[in-house]
Amino acid sequence: MKHKVIVIGASGTIGKELVKTLEAGGHEVIRVSRSSGDYQADIQDKQSLDSLFKAVGTFDAVANAAGDVAAGPLEQLTDENYAFALGNKLMGQINIVRTALPHVADKGSFVLISGVLTQEPILGGTIGTLVNGGIEGFVKAASHEMPRGIRINCVSPTVLAESVAIHPYFPGFIPVEVWKVAKAYERALFGIINGRIITV
Amino acid sequence: MKHKVIVIGASGTIGKELVKTLEAGGHEVIRVSRSSGDYQADIQDKQSLDSLFKAVGTFDAVANAAGDVAAGPLEQLTDENYAFALGNKLMGQINIVRTALPHVADKGSFVLISGVLTQEPILGGTIGTLVNGGIEGFVKAASHEMPRGIRINCVSPTVLAESVAIHPYFPGFIPVEVWKVAKAYERALFGIINGRIITV
Repeated sequence: MKHKVIVIGASGTIGKELVKTLEAGGHEVIRVSRSSGDYQADIQDKQSLDSLFKAVGTFDAVANAAGDVAAGPLEQLTDENYAFALGNKLMGQINIVRTALPHVADKGSFVLISGVLTQEPILGGTIGTLVNGGIEGFVKAASHEMPRGIRINCVSPTVLAESVAIHPYFPGFIPVEVWKVAKAYERALFGIINGRIITV
Repeated sequence: MKHKVIVIGASGTIGKELVKTLEAGGHEVIRVSRSSGDYQADIQDKQSLDSLFKAVGTFDAVANAAGDVAAGPLEQLTDENYAFALGNKLMGQINIVRTALPHVADKGSFVLISGVLTQEPILGGTIGTLVNGGIEGFVKAASHEMPRGIRINCVSPTVLAESVAIHPYFPGFIPVEVWKVAKAYERALFGIINGRIITV
């Protein structure tokens, strides 16, 4: 069965691979990025998300691969660092679900993103672990209250093989190839699971 | 060994029991509440926390039992509901740690609070699970970056036996007596554990 899937963060490493994977499966993909793609939106800006979903109209699923946090040594983190991450990767993703929910089809599907820091803290990654814990909590709880048979899941990738520049911050971590992350999204998008955190 | 412990939320069900437990153990307790106690502070107001810790001067530990979230059906939650909870139980607790850290003694100890919703979502509790996930993430990550031998842990109580009015929202949950929650704080405060979530 073919689906119409909105991919947010479509120009990033995960987003590009996910678009490729979905199109190879014959699905219709709507690409969303801050400054490219079929539609532009910024997950930090709830109004831009609301406009996006109204403009697309009808769709079966939303897969988000966008979300930034601030990083730095615990004692140097500022109010602005926390506020940025809470507004971006945390509330940005929650606002995707809130604004898309009235428009997504019955039995639709949401996939959000957390990451390996949930289980494995790294130096300077306190805000990352905090935000991932929050987003995973949201997914686990919200899954039980989604209306109309709609599902929500979360993909939690470890550091990407392709993200060579940040490998030094993840000593001893075995990177994952991005195609496997895209498969996890596909599994969450089109399977029956709900409220799950898929670590990959 | 006797310690000087600041208890925030000292007038609540957990806070009162914790004060009693600590005083029975011969510790010096500084009671903090929004409108009673030895000092007044509101965890939502970072400036009030900063003033509190400067005023107390030196202390060995901070135990927080305060923190509110908004509750309601997923589709009815508002921007204000999310913002309130993120500013109160989530960033409020993180700001306790950030503002107290320069003042707490070497080998000091922080204890924060999450709750059973982390693992067991209930109807209307999405924000509770989200906030608990965030605070537990913060504790797990920050524990590795605390300076001067300072430790941080989190107590996660299920619904309190004493909180009869909210029992209907927790069907089938076996309530915990508050004295056991106070013991969990004591264990976290004066043990050697760090970065742990103590479920009780």
